Amino acid sequence: MTDHRWMGAALALADRGVGRTAPNPNVGCLIVRDGRVVGRGWTQPGGRPHAEAMALAQAGEAAKGATAYVTLEPCAHVSTRGPACTDLLIAARVARIVAAMGDPDPRTNGEGFARARAAGIAVTTGVREAEARAMIAGFLTRRAKSRPFVTLKLATSLDGRIARPDGESRWITGPQARAHTHLERSRHEAILIGRGTLEADAPRLDVRLPGLESRSPRRILLSRTPEPGWETIASPAAIGDLAGVDRLMVEGGAKTASAFLAAGLVDRLLLYRAPILIGDGRAALSDIGLARLSDAHGRWRLTDSRMLGSDRLEVYERG
Amino acid sequence: MTDHRWMGAALALADRGVGRTAPNPNVGCLIVRDGRVVGRGWTQPGGRPHAEAMALAQAGEAAKGATAYVTLEPCAHVSTRGPACTDLLIAARVARIVAAMGDPDPRTNGEGFARARAAGIAVTTGVREAEARAMIAGFLTRRAKSRPFVTLKLATSLDGRIARPDGESRWITGPQARAHTHLERSRHEAILIGRGTLEADAPRLDVRLPGLESRSPRRILLSRTPEPGWETIASPAAIGDLAGVDRLMVEGGAKTASAFLAAGLVDRLLLYRAPILIGDGRAALSDIGLARLSDAHGRWRLTDSRMLGSDRLEVYERG
Repeated sequence: MTDHRWMGAALALADRGVGRTAPNPNVGCLIVRDGRVVGRGWTQPGGRPHAEAMALAQAGEAAKGATAYVTLEPCAHVSTRGPACTDLLIAARVARIVAAMGDPDPRTNGEGFARARAAGIAVTTGVREAEARAMIAGFLTRRAKSRPFVTLKLATSLDGRIARPDGESRWITGPQARAHTHLERSRHEAILIGRGTLEADAPRLDVRLPGLESRSPRRILLSRTPEPGWETIASPAAIGDLAGVDRLMVEGGAKTASAFLAAGLVDRLLLYRAPILIGDGRAALSDIGLARLSDAHGRWRLTDSRMLGSDRLEVYERG
Repeated sequence: MTDHRWMGAALALADRGVGRTAPNPNVGCLIVRDGRVVGRGWTQPGGRPHAEAMALAQAGEAAKGATAYVTLEPCAHVSTRGPACTDLLIAARVARIVAAMGDPDPRTNGEGFARARAAGIAVTTGVREAEARAMIAGFLTRRAKSRPFVTLKLATSLDGRIARPDGESRWITGPQARAHTHLERSRHEAILIGRGTLEADAPRLDVRLPGLESRSPRRILLSRTPEPGWETIASPAAIGDLAGVDRLMVEGGAKTASAFLAAGLVDRLLLYRAPILIGDGRAALSDIGLARLSDAHGRWRLTDSRMLGSDRLEVYERG
C-alpha cells in the first residue's frame, strides 16, 4: 500500500513530461528515505537528463539506503548523452528499487533490474503498471507501430455538428472546454490540421494558458502542397516520418478527422459536447469506411468523462 | 424534515400515474398517523378515483386526527365523476394537510386550502413544490399552452448519426438503452412518428417490458394523409387537438424531430448516445430554423445523466 502511494507521486512527476520528451519516454522518479522524500525527478524536455539522474542529484548523500520509485525500469545502456541510470542508482547505494514496468527498449529490457539485483539492490516491479503504460503511450506507440500516439479532438453540438451550414463554428463549446483543449495541446509534441481548417479558420493552434505559453506544440498541415510557416505531410500514413513527435493531436476538420479514422490511426478521442442543437450544418465526420453498423461497436472504451462548464468532455480510447 | 420525507413518498405514489391520468393531474396522497402510514393513494388511469379518495378509503377510521400529504391541493369542486377531495378530507376529520403546491384549476385554486382551514384543519403548502410541478408537467403544459408536454427522443452515435447512409439503424444503442426507451413510452399517453420512419422501420412503438405490456401508448402519425391503424395529425401545431394526451413522446426520424424543434414544441430531450462512430450517414436533425450559433445557447439545461450499459442517457429540459 505504501509502495502504491509513493508510485502515485512518481507518476505525477512523470506526467510533467508528457508531450515534451520524445524520443525518450516521460519517466518520474521519487527517492524516499525513512518515509521522507529526498529527491524528485522527471525526464526533462527533449529527453535528458533522465528522471533518476535528476532525483539522485537532488538527494545527494541521502540516497544511500533509500528506496527509488521509478515509473519505468532504469536504463542500462551508456549513451553519449549521459550515464546509465542503473549505474547511477548502484553508485548512490540505494537499498531498493520499486518500478512500475520494465523498459521494452532492447538495450535495457530487464538488464537494468538484473544489474541492480546483482549489486545487492532489492527490486520490486509491476506497481501500478497499467497507469505507467498509459503515461508513456506516446513512447510505446512509437516503438510498437513506428508512429506517434494520435489523439483526435472533436467539438460538437448534441446533434454532432461542428459548424452551421455557412461554416460558422465560433463558438460551439464554452471557455472552460476551450481552455481544456489548450491544456491538451501542451501535452502533445505536435498538432495537425487539414487545409480546409487552415483556410476557413486560420487557427493559431498555440497554448494560450497563463504560464504555459512556451508549451505550444509544432504545427503540422495535412496537405499535398507546401505552405509557408507550416510543416506538411501528404497523408495520415506519413505521421511516422514526424521525427521527435511521439504524441500528435489532430484538430480537424471533418475531412482530416475522417481520413485518420478510416486509416485506423486514432488511439484516443477527445469529445467536447455543448448542450446545444444546431440542426442543418456541418457534420463532425464524413466517410470513415464503415461497412456495417455492427463493425462500429466495441471499438471505443470510455476512459474519462467530466463537465467543463456546461459542456461535457468524454475521452475514449481504443476498446 | 419529516414533512419533506413523507412528501417524497407521496411523490413516488404520484409517479405511478405519469402518462395515464389525462385530463387529470397525476397526484399522490399519503395518510400518516402517529408516524405510521395508514393510507396510500394515487390518481387512477383516466383520472378517477383521485389520490385522496383512494388513500382515505384505505385509511378508514384511522384517518381521524392524521396528516394527509398531497402532491397537489385537494380539489374543491364536486364533479359528476366523484365528490370533492377537500370535502372527503374534512369528513374524515384529518388534523392536518401538507401539500406540495396549489391547484391552478380555477375551480380549486386556493379554495381547497381555504375550505379545509375553515373546517379547522391545519394546512402547510409548498413542500417540495419544484418536484411536484415537474411531476405534473403534462397537466401544467396542457393548462398553460393548450397542448401536451413533448419529449423528443434521439438515439445517436457519438458523431450524431441515427443511421448509415443506406438507412441501417439497428442497432446503434444497446439493450439497456432500448429498454429504457420502452419505460419512457409507458410514461406517455401517446407516441408520435413521421411517415418516413413508418415506411423505413414500421415500428411497433409498444412497451415490451415484463409487466408493462398493457402500458403501450396511443400511436400517432404525423402525416397529411390517413393511414389505416393510425391516428394522424397534419402538423406539429395540431398536437393540442389530441384529446386525452397530456404527455407526448416524439420518436423521430430527423424530419419529424426537426419540425417539432423548429416549431418550439419540444419541452424535454432524451438523448441516448452509443460509444460508436458512424461517419457518413443520416443526421439526427435537419433544419431547425437556427439563424446564428449564439441563438443555440442557453436553450437546454441538463437535468439527468446516466450510463445504460455502454450507452449514455442525457436528459435536457428547456433552459
